[in-house]
Amino acid sequence: MRKICVVITARASYSRIKTVLTAIQDHPRLLLQLVVTGSALVERFGNIIPYLEAEKLPVSAVIPNLLDVENTTASAKTTGLAVIELATFFANLRPDVVVTVADRFETIATAIAAVNMNIPLAHVQGGEITGNIDDRIRNSISQLADLHFVSTENARSRLIRMGLSPQKIHHTGCPSIDLVHRHRDFNFNPYETYGGVGSQPDLNAPYLVILQHPVTTETGHSKWQIDSTLRAITALKMPSIWFWPNADPGTAGTAQGIRAFREQHPDLPFHFFKNMESHHFIQLLKGCVCFVGNSSVGIRECSALGIPAVNIGTRQRGRERGPNVIDCLPDTDSILSAVRHQLAHGHYPGTRLYGNGNAGERIAEQLATIPFIIKKHLFPA
Amino acid sequence: MRKICVVITARASYSRIKTVLTAIQDHPRLLLQLVVTGSALVERFGNIIPYLEAEKLPVSAVIPNLLDVENTTASAKTTGLAVIELATFFANLRPDVVVTVADRFETIATAIAAVNMNIPLAHVQGGEITGNIDDRIRNSISQLADLHFVSTENARSRLIRMGLSPQKIHHTGCPSIDLVHRHRDFNFNPYETYGGVGSQPDLNAPYLVILQHPVTTETGHSKWQIDSTLRAITALKMPSIWFWPNADPGTAGTAQGIRAFREQHPDLPFHFFKNMESHHFIQLLKGCVCFVGNSSVGIRECSALGIPAVNIGTRQRGRERGPNVIDCLPDTDSILSAVRHQLAHGHYPGTRLYGNGNAGERIAEQLATIPFIIKKHLFPA
Amino acid sequence: MRKICVVITARASYSRIKTVLTAIQDHPRLLLQLVVTGSALVERFGNIIPYLEAEKLPVSAVIPNLLDVENTTASAKTTGLAVIELATFFANLRPDVVVTVADRFETIATAIAAVNMNIPLAHVQGGEITGNIDDRIRNSISQLADLHFVSTENARSRLIRMGLSPQKIHHTGCPSIDLVHRHRDFNFNPYETYGGVGSQPDLNAPYLVILQHPVTTETGHSKWQIDSTLRAITALKMPSIWFWPNADPGTAGTAQGIRAFREQHPDLPFHFFKNMESHHFIQLLKGCVCFVGNSSVGIRECSALGIPAVNIGTRQRGRERGPNVIDCLPDTDSILSAVRHQLAHGHYPGTRLYGNGNAGERIAEQLATIPFIIKKHLFPA
Amino acid sequence: MRKICVVITARASYSRIKTVLTAIQDHPRLLLQLVVTGSALVERFGNIIPYLEAEKLPVSAVIPNLLDVENTTASAKTTGLAVIELATFFANLRPDVVVTVADRFETIATAIAAVNMNIPLAHVQGGEITGNIDDRIRNSISQLADLHFVSTENARSRLIRMGLSPQKIHHTGCPSIDLVHRHRDFNFNPYETYGGVGSQPDLNAPYLVILQHPVTTETGHSKWQIDSTLRAITALKMPSIWFWPNADPGTAGTAQGIRAFREQHPDLPFHFFKNMESHHFIQLLKGCVCFVGNSSVGIRECSALGIPAVNIGTRQRGRERGPNVIDCLPDTDSILSAVRHQLAHGHYPGTRLYGNGNAGERIAEQLATIPFIIKKHLFPA
Repeated sequence: MRKICVVITARASYSRIKTVLTAIQDHPRLLLQLVVTGSALVERFGNIIPYLEAEKLPVSAVIPNLLDVENTTASAKTTGLAVIELATFFANLRPDVVVTVADRFETIATAIAAVNMNIPLAHVQGGEITGNIDDRIRNSISQLADLHFVSTENARSRLIRMGLSPQKIHHTGCPSIDLVHRHRDFNFNPYETYGGVGSQPDLNAPYLVILQHPVTTETGHSKWQIDSTLRAITALKMPSIWFWPNADPGTAGTAQGIRAFREQHPDLPFHFFKNMESHHFIQLLKGCVCFVGNSSVGIRECSALGIPAVNIGTRQRGRERGPNVIDCLPDTDSILSAVRHQLAHGHYPGTRLYGNGNAGERIAEQLATIPFIIKKHLFPA
Repeated sequence: MRKICVVITARASYSRIKTVLTAIQDHPRLLLQLVVTGSALVERFGNIIPYLEAEKLPVSAVIPNLLDVENTTASAKTTGLAVIELATFFANLRPDVVVTVADRFETIATAIAAVNMNIPLAHVQGGEITGNIDDRIRNSISQLADLHFVSTENARSRLIRMGLSPQKIHHTGCPSIDLVHRHRDFNFNPYETYGGVGSQPDLNAPYLVILQHPVTTETGHSKWQIDSTLRAITALKMPSIWFWPNADPGTAGTAQGIRAFREQHPDLPFHFFKNMESHHFIQLLKGCVCFVGNSSVGIRECSALGIPAVNIGTRQRGRERGPNVIDCLPDTDSILSAVRHQLAHGHYPGTRLYGNGNAGERIAEQLATIPFIIKKHLFPA
Repeated sequence: MRKICVVITARASYSRIKTVLTAIQDHPRLLLQLVVTGSALVERFGNIIPYLEAEKLPVSAVIPNLLDVENTTASAKTTGLAVIELATFFANLRPDVVVTVADRFETIATAIAAVNMNIPLAHVQGGEITGNIDDRIRNSISQLADLHFVSTENARSRLIRMGLSPQKIHHTGCPSIDLVHRHRDFNFNPYETYGGVGSQPDLNAPYLVILQHPVTTETGHSKWQIDSTLRAITALKMPSIWFWPNADPGTAGTAQGIRAFREQHPDLPFHFFKNMESHHFIQLLKGCVCFVGNSSVGIRECSALGIPAVNIGTRQRGRERGPNVIDCLPDTDSILSAVRHQLAHGHYPGTRLYGNGNAGERIAEQLATIPFIIKKHLFPA
Repeated sequence: MRKICVVITARASYSRIKTVLTAIQDHPRLLLQLVVTGSALVERFGNIIPYLEAEKLPVSAVIPNLLDVENTTASAKTTGLAVIELATFFANLRPDVVVTVADRFETIATAIAAVNMNIPLAHVQGGEITGNIDDRIRNSISQLADLHFVSTENARSRLIRMGLSPQKIHHTGCPSIDLVHRHRDFNFNPYETYGGVGSQPDLNAPYLVILQHPVTTETGHSKWQIDSTLRAITALKMPSIWFWPNADPGTAGTAQGIRAFREQHPDLPFHFFKNMESHHFIQLLKGCVCFVGNSSVGIRECSALGIPAVNIGTRQRGRERGPNVIDCLPDTDSILSAVRHQLAHGHYPGTRLYGNGNAGERIAEQLATIPFIIKKHLFPA
């Protein structure tokens, strides 16, 4: 049995890797070692432990380490703490491979601990491009990884151009799209299941889904950026389902913007959720008339579903996208005009840009079969 | 005044960056903030504090953080600790730029703390190639850095192929070569000045200089690898000046090999030093008939001086080299035959492969004049 | 000049030690090294940096280290982080004495770092008793300290009974009382100066001041405990000035209780402040008809001022108190009846139980003159 | 099943607690959670993992965290790291009780993590007195602990005088004495079993056992102190079995003293061991004519066995002792004269001062049956 240690640091990463976890768990020759840390353990950013329990995914270790201070020093220290404690858990769990996901700051901690300890490192979602600091982190992790599971052919080419060995790069598609291909029809009441605050608009009428994070290189701007979106959506007077931002630097500004707006406009048909299981989120997404925000959801999941998406600002700059996406600046007029255009257009045909829906199984199969050549074995002992 | 924070984590990095430190210190528009950490504070790996004091280079902070356990977990934890505490010191020192050097594991800690905190990061010696885990670290740091000071044109091309912006890459030459170009004739007695152990061979006769580190991806092999070298040099019966290995994983094996050999062969004309100031080291190097080992010194400094060098094993695989270098496997016969070939050949003409001797000044001047465009200022506040 | 390093970890500790800081700063033979860390750097728990700037107290180092997760693991990890980084700053600042205040968890980090490093440790407010986990911490720190500045004769006796050397225990009075003795009449508008939320009751009419923290050994109970108080004060319909709780475990429950109550009862004459400079807080306190809560303010400051105080629950159990304090259980009826009794009674005469108002100067003078016998000098070198 | 988490930070602590571990492991209602950290994981200070495996004691977690730098900053940082990671492991292991042993610096880390997390803390060997910094640590831990297992009646009285509740203090005897009462006759060859360096004196002739640690408050003096002992024993020309010192600050001086002495006097009948399983150590001790050094072994184990002991310097000052102990200053003449006196006297009758040999079982039984009243349950939820 190969021991595969997957480290999850945030709600978003869990959604992206979920089908990989299940496929590892179901694979006869793999043993899943799941380590949960960072904002993935904090209630207000979406504690994923209950979801893991619901999926019967066993947790090998929890490592609470998120610093409170909303500034960039705190973010660096959370990363440092993660390196320290992941090293200890790797020394105890002795995994054959460590898997890290995407491009959040804490994911580089996973990479550093594994590489330092000569444990083969697999990276999911390398080679992509977005418009912010995440690109640097993602590429930096790609340089550290021994094994790459990429979402698109473009991503594969980009890694090869960066000097990485083509044999180590596997184009498996993006596991976050797997869930989209398995979605079912709307079969739950989100207000009852997830609570949240605000009005409870009728979801049989046309509604929007909105998810806007702070931009890590523009932390001082998060409040006015969310304000622009809030004003634009207010002008539309449409039922809207909003999600709270992730824990990135700048999140306090985004959260404050939302809270202040809610106090001033208690009567708008807006509902706010903290978190939602991915399969429910996909159902909700599938039912909406337009997605708005700067999450990769607009580009990744929505391209598979053909949902019209309005992508705001720089956060996804450069990410490969289907015809369903319109980009706009983070000002009220631009957002308003882009959403109106998408509403007029309606649904798009879905694309296979980010995969066929079987990335989870393909990644698990590769993890079970790839020979790991560890350099330290090159010479005879 | 721009505040330039340089973080030094090891004796070797200090030698490489020394002329940059002096040039920053002497620059009218730069303020040097020198932070010393890792093995650079530990006596047995070469505490650099006395050298800094001798050079009148003021130290802004010392951060002792090297873990003792000689295993890879310890190395990861030292890196994590460094991220945590560097973040705190950056928050207190508020540098305009952070400078990190080369490719040791701890140097990625500097990069992570700076990038996390949106402080512009300059990287010296990016784009080079060696044959071990250092390549991954170096490239990973390059992906994180905002500004690159490279040693060779090849290094520059390699960074551009990796997707980095050409405007941010400055070919300044390698600062470790600056010292070589400033070397003076032999004007000190190394035994009196640095103590050390072993015989005190006459340095007017032909002698070798030997510096062999453990290879971080072959940590279990460090003892037999140094044994091969010790046996080869013994067969030559030549006066030899040896230096202790650095603090990388595997160092205990290398050190143990040297100690056991010394007990068995107390009468050989070998002398062992822990450390030496760079300008003295250059003098010693200039006087030798051949350099042996796996340090970059053989390739970098020796190419400028035209010193014959025998480069053992994989540690420098891929690094650009002049005609003065012969590579060999880490076995006694290969080493012996390579050294004999070099002794027969004698000196080579020096090359300018790694620069003209003014890299320190050029880097300082760039740091003083380059406009820093921080992404977070892209949008108006 | 003796270097005196004072470590402040929370808003409350700053208020307690403020006159000591000023006295050290003003002393011709002392150099103040002020280190600020923990919740004292976090906006929502009362960042003290602006107050230090206003007082012209120079900060030698800030160490942001508060973990976010509201659970006891986070509290332990914050303490561990503090030990690590305080050790580094002590190694850089090289203080002659380290001063730690009172009994918060993070203050033991200061003690451990100093004692580990053989730096003389002075402890302010040892030997007191309260009703919770703080007693253990306080006594544990007393056992580590080299020098004790106590508030009362009872505290001194208690330390001697614990086996500590009488010569090392100095009865100086409590520095937090110094401010009380220096208070001026009400000369500021708290709503304008400090903002806050809620109604703005007329402070010329009789008003209450309320400060209730979570109890660290009853963390699961913090919400219903604050609810009891909120209901009791609501029944009184009196103007009330509330302060947000500190960062102790359980604080989320207290904060949530206050927030939910405010939403349901937006019209009550309640105002909520996050923080207030100590001298302003004393003015506000002096003007109130009764203090309610579980802060030591009710016992310490109010005893000097003769302000009637209602002390709720176990948090101050055992602390020496004057006749101005009535204890009650944390249920609405008990609180209501206790407050009504105090309102009927009116002001009490002030006492000198906690000192004469010159504790700051006395402590500074001792720090300047006490000979430090460090054990390591017992033997000749 | 109650989960009992025992944290071991050093070889010495393992010897002290071994019979408690076995008794917990054998108890039908207790589950042992063994956490190993600090110098107990480092080869040169005596890695205990092989001994645990030999005893079939399962290890729940290893936490390598010992910093290398031989100075007091490193010691503080190791303590801080231990707090951080123990908190995480406690959060994962969810023990019902945490057990900490004696008085080393790292043991306070165990106490702080447990108390911070509201986990009941049991302390073994509280209330004793020695002559150095350990007293402060031991008393500080006693103040934090919920439950005390003490070695002697005097220790119990001392804790009660310190204000601790008599009901929580259990006089069980010292578990390190249990092994003494179970010792068997000499049945192994120490040179074959443990290697070591130096001559191999005949152990059928009279021999000494010597164990001298650095004194943590006299770190600068460790070299001359061991030199005094080395010279005294040399003058006696007796076969001697020496053990290397523990990892306390100052250990480099002690080790350096031993190494230099060995080089100068290669022919003396001295043998040096790094480490030895406790049951073997007891056999070796039982066979010797005199114990010399500053370890508690001379006072504790030797009193039960009636072995003459020479106790050097301040390290054990104040510890209760039987008639078998002679104290002396750390100078050659004093040591020489004390050892000669003991050799002339010969064996003493054994005492029961430190227990009857069943402390392990008694502690396990208490851990299984004592009701844990956690303060946080005082109020109804």
